[in-house]
Amino acid sequence: MPLHETRPLANAIRFLAIDAIVRAGEGHQGVPLGMAEIATALFTQHLKFNPADPQWPDRDRFVLSNGHGSMLLYALLHLTGYPHFGIEELRSFRQMGSRCEGHPEFDTAAGIEVTTGPLGQGIANALGMAVAEAYLNAKFGDGIVNHHTYAFVGDGCLQEGVGQEMIALAGHLQLGKLILCWDDNRITDDGSTTLSISEDVSARFRVAGWHVIEADGHDLDALAAALAEANRDPRPSMIACRTVIARGIARLQGQRGGHSGKLFEADADAARNELGWPHAPFEIPPDVLDAWRGAGHRSDAEYLAWRERLAALPADARAEFERIQAGRLPDGWQRVLEDYKRQSIERGEAQAGIMISAEINDRLAQLPERMVACADLEAPTSHKRSLHAFTAQERSGAYVHCGVREHLMGSMANGMAAHGGVIPLAVTYLAFADYERPAMRMAALMGLPVKFVFSHDSIGVGRNGPTHQPVEILASLRAMPNMRVFRPADAVEAAECWALAYEHQSGPSTMVFARQNLPLVRTSHGAENRCARGGYVLAAAEGGQRLVTLLATGSEVALALEARERLQRKGIPTAVVSLPCWELFDAQDRAYRDEVLGLNTVRVGVEAAVRFGWDRYLGERGGFVGMAGFGASGPAEVLYEHFGITPGHIVAEAQRHL
Amino acid sequence: MPLHETRPLANAIRFLAIDAIVRAGEGHQGVPLGMAEIATALFTQHLKFNPADPQWPDRDRFVLSNGHGSMLLYALLHLTGYPHFGIEELRSFRQMGSRCEGHPEFDTAAGIEVTTGPLGQGIANALGMAVAEAYLNAKFGDGIVNHHTYAFVGDGCLQEGVGQEMIALAGHLQLGKLILCWDDNRITDDGSTTLSISEDVSARFRVAGWHVIEADGHDLDALAAALAEANRDPRPSMIACRTVIARGIARLQGQRGGHSGKLFEADADAARNELGWPHAPFEIPPDVLDAWRGAGHRSDAEYLAWRERLAALPADARAEFERIQAGRLPDGWQRVLEDYKRQSIERGEAQAGIMISAEINDRLAQLPERMVACADLEAPTSHKRSLHAFTAQERSGAYVHCGVREHLMGSMANGMAAHGGVIPLAVTYLAFADYERPAMRMAALMGLPVKFVFSHDSIGVGRNGPTHQPVEILASLRAMPNMRVFRPADAVEAAECWALAYEHQSGPSTMVFARQNLPLVRTSHGAENRCARGGYVLAAAEGGQRLVTLLATGSEVALALEARERLQRKGIPTAVVSLPCWELFDAQDRAYRDEVLGLNTVRVGVEAAVRFGWDRYLGERGGFVGMAGFGASGPAEVLYEHFGITPGHIVAEAQRHL
Repeated sequence: MPLHETRPLANAIRFLAIDAIVRAGEGHQGVPLGMAEIATALFTQHLKFNPADPQWPDRDRFVLSNGHGSMLLYALLHLTGYPHFGIEELRSFRQMGSRCEGHPEFDTAAGIEVTTGPLGQGIANALGMAVAEAYLNAKFGDGIVNHHTYAFVGDGCLQEGVGQEMIALAGHLQLGKLILCWDDNRITDDGSTTLSISEDVSARFRVAGWHVIEADGHDLDALAAALAEANRDPRPSMIACRTVIARGIARLQGQRGGHSGKLFEADADAARNELGWPHAPFEIPPDVLDAWRGAGHRSDAEYLAWRERLAALPADARAEFERIQAGRLPDGWQRVLEDYKRQSIERGEAQAGIMISAEINDRLAQLPERMVACADLEAPTSHKRSLHAFTAQERSGAYVHCGVREHLMGSMANGMAAHGGVIPLAVTYLAFADYERPAMRMAALMGLPVKFVFSHDSIGVGRNGPTHQPVEILASLRAMPNMRVFRPADAVEAAECWALAYEHQSGPSTMVFARQNLPLVRTSHGAENRCARGGYVLAAAEGGQRLVTLLATGSEVALALEARERLQRKGIPTAVVSLPCWELFDAQDRAYRDEVLGLNTVRVGVEAAVRFGWDRYLGERGGFVGMAGFGASGPAEVLYEHFGITPGHIVAEAQRHL
Repeated sequence: MPLHETRPLANAIRFLAIDAIVRAGEGHQGVPLGMAEIATALFTQHLKFNPADPQWPDRDRFVLSNGHGSMLLYALLHLTGYPHFGIEELRSFRQMGSRCEGHPEFDTAAGIEVTTGPLGQGIANALGMAVAEAYLNAKFGDGIVNHHTYAFVGDGCLQEGVGQEMIALAGHLQLGKLILCWDDNRITDDGSTTLSISEDVSARFRVAGWHVIEADGHDLDALAAALAEANRDPRPSMIACRTVIARGIARLQGQRGGHSGKLFEADADAARNELGWPHAPFEIPPDVLDAWRGAGHRSDAEYLAWRERLAALPADARAEFERIQAGRLPDGWQRVLEDYKRQSIERGEAQAGIMISAEINDRLAQLPERMVACADLEAPTSHKRSLHAFTAQERSGAYVHCGVREHLMGSMANGMAAHGGVIPLAVTYLAFADYERPAMRMAALMGLPVKFVFSHDSIGVGRNGPTHQPVEILASLRAMPNMRVFRPADAVEAAECWALAYEHQSGPSTMVFARQNLPLVRTSHGAENRCARGGYVLAAAEGGQRLVTLLATGSEVALALEARERLQRKGIPTAVVSLPCWELFDAQDRAYRDEVLGLNTVRVGVEAAVRFGWDRYLGERGGFVGMAGFGASGPAEVLYEHFGITPGHIVAEAQRHL
């Protein structure tokens, strides 16, 4: 369609947004009204997509990073013909149960690539999608994986640190198929952007190695040309689109209130006059709807050609592509882990916790879909090993040097998982999990199978001192819904926990490892994955009815075993329970949990961390040996003594409660 | 002293660092060896300080943002004569109990301005110190407050998002007395910086409005000149110091291992030969020590002149300055809060939680030392009111528009508190506490009296949906040592909690408020601050022995009261306990806690958040009414019904457990 005919298309977006927001009584009109032309140019002339197959693996990805402008996305999904977004859905915007939620919620089957709202996350996710695309492109070739990732972005996303981290790393990695459209409307929630930013945003992108184009955000010709130029350039591109926030609402446009000031029917009426849109609320005239539905078919030929290319692949390559797209692990993949368990028991040696994890993952080389990201801690976390780096020049590398950018690393991993076809691991120290936490929350909320891997998990860090010693972070992550936190006690548990993490598809797993040596606590052979129930009796009470139950995780399981020996010698039948994953344990039936916890015994929790959260297992008579506050700087073994996390103190705590 | 004589001064730093690290068996030599000349230039020619009075209010602030290089700071404090850093202290580097901890730990009395280690925090703290200086300068004039803030910074701090946020806001606010010295050694932990960064760092600073100078980081003349130029320029300055990491250790310098590769005695011996330093370990020749001690006296005249100017102030201005420096609240300051409590009871109206907090703070205008920072949510959090903005032009403003930069906001607040003379509040939505959390942890670790204020504290947020609805964040903050979390139920509790927060000097307070209306639950007059004990019986059981105890916080207290009415009508004597601050409650004696909790009653916790952490109060027979996972998008009242957080469900839960 000639460009001069596209103004009604943009206005169709505008009025769907206005009508839905007036009907809901609230919403954010700034973005859909300000970016309507940008969206029109992208969706009618550039985006490769297929509403009839929203999960087409080689579709372009579209991320609305300024997610509060959700009605823009819903309007586009409706207009282009995504089946989940009928007009009734739009009429129920912001009502309980509507797909048109306040912010877009991840649902690729419906056409929503990622949940957005917390600012900066979306563009960082987009970077992850572009990394996944480049990696898969290197593996499967242009015929199978070759798409762009587009993100719309406002000032807020670019002010956030994670957004700045994204700019730096995307420029460094020269992700040329990543294209941002910046809604340069010069308004934030507080008013003029001059309240909080003075820098030339375009120049900041250029410094980072981006290709920057400036365009009138309401000029369809200019926007289409800019997108074409961005597509041609080998660098990541940022199109600075000068826009008027809430354009079309005379009372609010270009002003602070344009962001989300309440819209009334009178505003909608005035906009109808102003923009020449005589149609009733939620009514799109047939010619406009036809044009939009036509846009929904713009990639049909490309889609069919892609399916033919996929069908023409050699059978094994096609099977491999379909396997990783489905997130299915290869047959027999677990054998490596079983071998590792057996060999660990035969070796019988203590090993540093994080090195155990590194070795396990190194052995899983038959999972080529696995990518590892790390925040400048390659040597102490050791998860690179036989991998090579993913760089601007070499896209086949599965290891991403993220720099000291933990937040971006986590959000990037989310984008990789949302893209599909890769399994992302993100590695850093547990003390820095807080930097990554906003991304971890989004992974939990979206149910993305990201593996967040952490080393240096307690005061066992030693002399680097309290800044580097997590004491409260295990609790803070266990508090997060849909997040599984694994803290294995030795090499055998580590293999079992990694098996569970790789199998878990509906949410993230947090893998927590000690820096220090973990002696072997699971010394008997057996194929059963005992960690699958989250907690189990590792050493039963002997010589009579169980009187004491010691509950421990990770590096403290060995201390509990030693305390049990001493209690047994005193004639006190004592069991040790290992609790590597609370979430899995809590999902067991009551009888199993009661049996493991030893309901009528004295229970003592042991963990080099705060007690917070442990009470659910300890009961009113329960004791605890752990940390009461932050750590200190000193050798690890001295710190364990200093803070009283020793077999002697465990024995004393049990006896005190008997 | 002529510059050509200063090389031994720099080498004194080097060998103290080498000797301490060799003795400890570990440490990070990269920074002290690479920045020895920069530190020498700053401390011998520019820094305004007085080792005999480390807390001199008008001293220049020095922040080692790359805190792993802690031996640089300890060496400087020793050489310039800070009394807490005798040579024995340096010999015990990284031993338990030493002041020379792995990373510098906040202790202004000893000369350590702020705890550093987690990257990016230090330079963000430095921004806060510069803001505090500018604000106090506007209030008290150049004669009393007029100092620089210097920070040493490595590549890691600048890669972190919080560092990037800092660059943007410092440039925007044109904090001309803020000077960074960048250790441009082109090495990070993973190796060459080219692994993860391609941008021209100096250009990135220039884009943000900084004055950038490039200098040879080992040339004392050039460094001294650069510092002088930075001092003259009205913009914030960044001195890009080209350095060689670990300079002096031939085996490691300029290489990846320079960062923290193990040093041996042979390395120390080789360095002694190489640098012409024939002295024994930890021995500083008298002339060099005299020169350094002389540097420690370089500001003596300025110090005395400053004391004279302070003494010459009018009595009331001097008293005011001394009051805010001591962190002492003015006599009778609480009267406003007591009036507010009384008036709230008289009005008897429900009010939006966050607006209650805003009104309370607006009335506390007699605390001119209070500064409020907010991350682009001025309107919905309303804590600006009668304050005006702190800007590049107007330094008397007490409200800092931070932009959408929560992490920087929190770290900035820490720097303001560490500086002294101001009481910082940092305001955003509770859902975004995760962005700020690394700063909150540092405040807790340092024991800084920052007030972290949050609005929109639950599913009561409503239609913005689960991204904006905290459910796990209260638990995650309660898990943090030395962090007090307040969640008041109404205007009266809010006034009491704010009184407690302002009085609390030895750690941060988190203040959590609902977006929605809070009806009055405390309707009887009384001067006693009932929240001071953290939890208390708000409504006693009537008509017999208490059978049920409903424990609630914040917006759910009103629901618990309504449930109590229904239970009482059924003949079940029921008490309601309000628990606005768990940390204060846990500090009460056992008898009080048992009495409040009603040990032998059925206890039901009620909070629109996850149960995690509640078990400590609920006992093995306890029930809970709250959230089991993330929220949803819908009107608040519909969500409360949907998730079953209603008086009816509370009644049912109590009866189920009876």
